[in-house]
Order: sequence, then C-alpha cells, then structure tokens
Amino acid sequence: MAINYPAGTRRRTAQAKNTMRTGKTTKKALTFGKRGMGLEDEINLANDYYLANHLAVIHKKPTPITIVKVDYPARSAAKITEAYFKQASTTDYNGVYQGRYIDFDAKETKNKTSFPLKNFHEHQIVHLANVLSQNGVGFVIIKFTSLDESYIYPAQALIRQWEKLRGKQSIAYQDIIAEGYRVPESLNPSLDYLKAVDQYFENLN
Amino acid sequence: MAINYPAGTRRRTAQAKNTMRTGKTTKKALTFGKRGMGLEDEINLANDYYLANHLAVIHKKPTPITIVKVDYPARSAAKITEAYFKQASTTDYNGVYQGRYIDFDAKETKNKTSFPLKNFHEHQIVHLANVLSQNGVGFVIIKFTSLDESYIYPAQALIRQWEKLRGKQSIAYQDIIAEGYRVPESLNPSLDYLKAVDQYFENLN
Repeated sequence: MAINYPAGTRRRTAQAKNTMRTGKTTKKALTFGKRGMGLEDEINLANDYYLANHLAVIHKKPTPITIVKVDYPARSAAKITEAYFKQASTTDYNGVYQGRYIDFDAKETKNKTSFPLKNFHEHQIVHLANVLSQNGVGFVIIKFTSLDESYIYPAQALIRQWEKLRGKQSIAYQDIIAEGYRVPESLNPSLDYLKAVDQYFENLN
Repeated sequence: MAINYPAGTRRRTAQAKNTMRTGKTTKKALTFGKRGMGLEDEINLANDYYLANHLAVIHKKPTPITIVKVDYPARSAAKITEAYFKQASTTDYNGVYQGRYIDFDAKETKNKTSFPLKNFHEHQIVHLANVLSQNGVGFVIIKFTSLDESYIYPAQALIRQWEKLRGKQSIAYQDIIAEGYRVPESLNPSLDYLKAVDQYFENLN
C-alpha cells in the first residue's frame, strides 16, 4: 500500500520551545538564508523538507525533562511549575530513510583544525555503538562554523577515535574530511545532509 | 566491528518523571510481577531488557514540552518554572531491531470486544503512514487489560480501519486478533513484544 498523507511543513523557529538545551548554540534566524541560523535549526528545516517531500521521516527527540510539579488549573491547560533538564540517554535525532534506521547527533565548533571530543558524552558513544550492533546507521553531523563546512562523520570512525583518545583531546580536521562525507552546498534545504548520507550509503554497499 | 558496550539495566519506576502523559494510565508497580503495572511500564522494562541483552535498541521518546520560563539559580541546576505539555507529532516509541526501523505507539483499553479509535490522534496515523512509505515497520501495541491480552497490530491494518471508520467508532476485537500478533506470555520481560514482532516479520518476508 502507498498512502501519502500530507505531511505538512511546519517552519520551526528558534524560540524557547523544546529546542532549549544547555551547552548548545540555538541562535535566532534573524538574517536571511542560513546566516545566523544554528545547526539545530538547519537540521530541523531539512527534516521538515524531507518529511513534506516524502524523502525521509527523521525527527528531533524532545528534550528530556524530569517533571516535579504540575498545576491543574480549572478551565486551562496543565501547567508544569517545577521541572529540570536531564541528561539524554540517546542521541537527538533518529528516523527512517529508504528503509534504513538512521540515528545521529549534531555538533558544531568554531575550531578550524580539529573537533574536540568533549562535545560528546560517553552515553552518546555507547548509544551509537548499540545502534551499529543492530545494523542501524549511526553518525554525527559536525559543523565547522568558521569554515562553513558540515560533515557526516560515521559512528564507526567516531567510536574508534573515542577509544584511541579515551574521550579526551580532539579529532583532527584532516581525519574528519578523510573519513567523513561533506554536506554539499544547497539552498533548500540549506543543510541537505541526506545527500552526504547517500554518499555514505554508496560506500556501505 | 563489534563493540559491545555495557548497556546497563535501569529499572524505571512509574514516578512523575517523563512518563507523565495526559489520558494515559501510569500506575505504580506496587504488586509483584506485572500486576498493577501499566502497559507503558511493561514496555519500558522490555526495552531495558532488549538493550541490556543486545536484542534491540528501542526507546520511548521524552514527553514533548513547551518551555516558557527557566530560572538559572547560582550554584544549582537550571529550573524550569513554566512549561506546558504539547501534542506529540510522532508516536512514542522507535528504534532499531535486526536492522529494521521500528516505530509504534502503545494503547490499552478496558473493553473486551473492541478497541475505540478515539485512542488515536490523526497525527499518529499520519506519522505511521509516513513510516510505512519509507519502508519502516509501524504498528501499535494494543492491550486489552480486562482480558490480559496484548497484540501487535500492524500500521497497515490500523490505517485501513481508520479510513473505513473515519477515525470514529471501534475496531472489533475479532479484527484485531485476525490481523494482529499476540504477545506470548513471558516472565522476563513480562511483555516480550519482540516475540510477536518476530512473527510479524515472518509474514512480511
């Protein structure tokens, strides 16, 4: 069967919605185009585009919260009055593309010559290793903001570097371009990362 | 490569964590075994078991929240002081099992002869249709609590019923057992739903 429900394009803006996240840059899209847009916003827009065009179903997971107190005022919506951010046990994005399970996180750095491993938590590495063991496709999208270059960096390579460097230090830029797949320039979506995933798939097959 | 990181078993209890959800039963596991345990708790325990035993990587997504106000007190964690529940745009669970993308929601009913479609929102049906169009595996776990019977009910069948009944009325119990796959009795995990998924896979191949 092939039901094509309208998927809808919801343009997500970088408000204090569920995109808030300690230690991550979430800038407002004030200027035109992708300038001033954070990596997370670019990925969300790409995911909206992929969904609307039936190319992939990939969503950002909501930020995990520990809820402590909820008020239930009469005649209005339940209001959470005390809650705390908690550490995620997985990566931020997952979904399905051409029948394949896709799982990734997105990180950006201002560095030009390397990517610091402190951007990752061990639980994310463990999660990606678990995904690989189930024959899922895991990677990270790494953006060098100063260079305006983004790469799909396979989880296999990331895990190898993590073990070699024991979660410390940095992955050299040269290593990332050697084993990664550059996201090509694009207008709509501004970060057409599935193009780089396609190249990665070609190497996998 | 075959890295097997310890996945760890975290026994989730039914506290007011991220398991809170309007309109869903989240009972505390007061009695021994699965008695008194809600369907969601059973699925979470099964997912922990699958993860620890490297059988599958399936997680419940955090409850989506719209955050309005956050306090950043000195020397302590950021505190969310105003937030609201918002409607999810996807199902609650997804992950990877034997290289396949798995996506599902879980619903329980006290009815014995039918399952009311009002338990679903249209966006969940649309999401499952999108998943199918990417060759993902979509289904719902339906539990008849009075009968203590749980079924994997494929998204294809659910979507057909939804269209036939226009999102209203109920799916007859007989239709669910005819097209569904019963989750067999089990002790650990108490709801070994991947066993039913295995049967479903056999029919798919």
